[in-house]
Amino acid sequence: MSASSDNNEIEEGLNFQPKFDAAGLVTCVATDVATGEVLMVAHMNEEALRKTIASGEAWYYSRSRQSLWRKGETSGHVQRVVEMRTDCDQDAVWVRVEQTGAACHTGRRSCFYRKIEAGEGGARLSFVDDPKALYPK
Amino acid sequence: MSASSDNNEIEEGLNFQPKFDAAGLVTCVATDVATGEVLMVAHMNEEALRKTIASGEAWYYSRSRQSLWRKGETSGHVQRVVEMRTDCDQDAVWVRVEQTGAACHTGRRSCFYRKIEAGEGGARLSFVDDPKALYPK
Repeated sequence: MSASSDNNEIEEGLNFQPKFDAAGLVTCVATDVATGEVLMVAHMNEEALRKTIASGEAWYYSRSRQSLWRKGETSGHVQRVVEMRTDCDQDAVWVRVEQTGAACHTGRRSCFYRKIEAGEGGARLSFVDDPKALYPK
Repeated sequence: MSASSDNNEIEEGLNFQPKFDAAGLVTCVATDVATGEVLMVAHMNEEALRKTIASGEAWYYSRSRQSLWRKGETSGHVQRVVEMRTDCDQDAVWVRVEQTGAACHTGRRSCFYRKIEAGEGGARLSFVDDPKALYPK
């Protein structure tokens, strides 16, 4: 990883030079490699990126706890990274993972368990079919 | 949409109460409804959310241009929203879209056209099979 340089190099080059935000983070989207479903959106700092790339398991940075965490460290719900990509401006990362158990801390497979739909009094949510896992969080 | 209240209501309730960051934005992931591929990661402010929900076409907020934009407004590469979801803490949105043409401003279908892989001197990128679109950007 190296500091960001000019636009063409960032968009068309082969150096991974993540564009961290003011807090030192990039956004990471994790999808289920089998279904394509979006499991979660989280953040990685430089160390989380490095550990994820080196280990093949997803590490994140928790903004609320201000600490690095290996996904599934306490729950056992680890993410094995099958493929990792970055986007055109290198401020986001997409990991395709094999998810053990539930990605969501609520016990659901995906954090995205509610649909947003237009309603008469404004937008409303409804649950999609994503039952809570039977194993502990 | 309403202001965020307690945690249980946010995670288990049916009110859409997006948790905007300090800049008034939520993160939005757009995936191709046909392939599950992640097309782009962008941001929506309250107005972009409202217009997306009301119109069924994706609107975003550009942090660099500091302005609202309808995806495809100039390029014609619009996104028809088939389904829209929010996550457990309501600070991210996932839209499953029918993408006309290319989602990426480089002319590629997806912004995520490069893989990240461990290399001897650090992480390296390689292009995935995502040829530039033949139509203008």
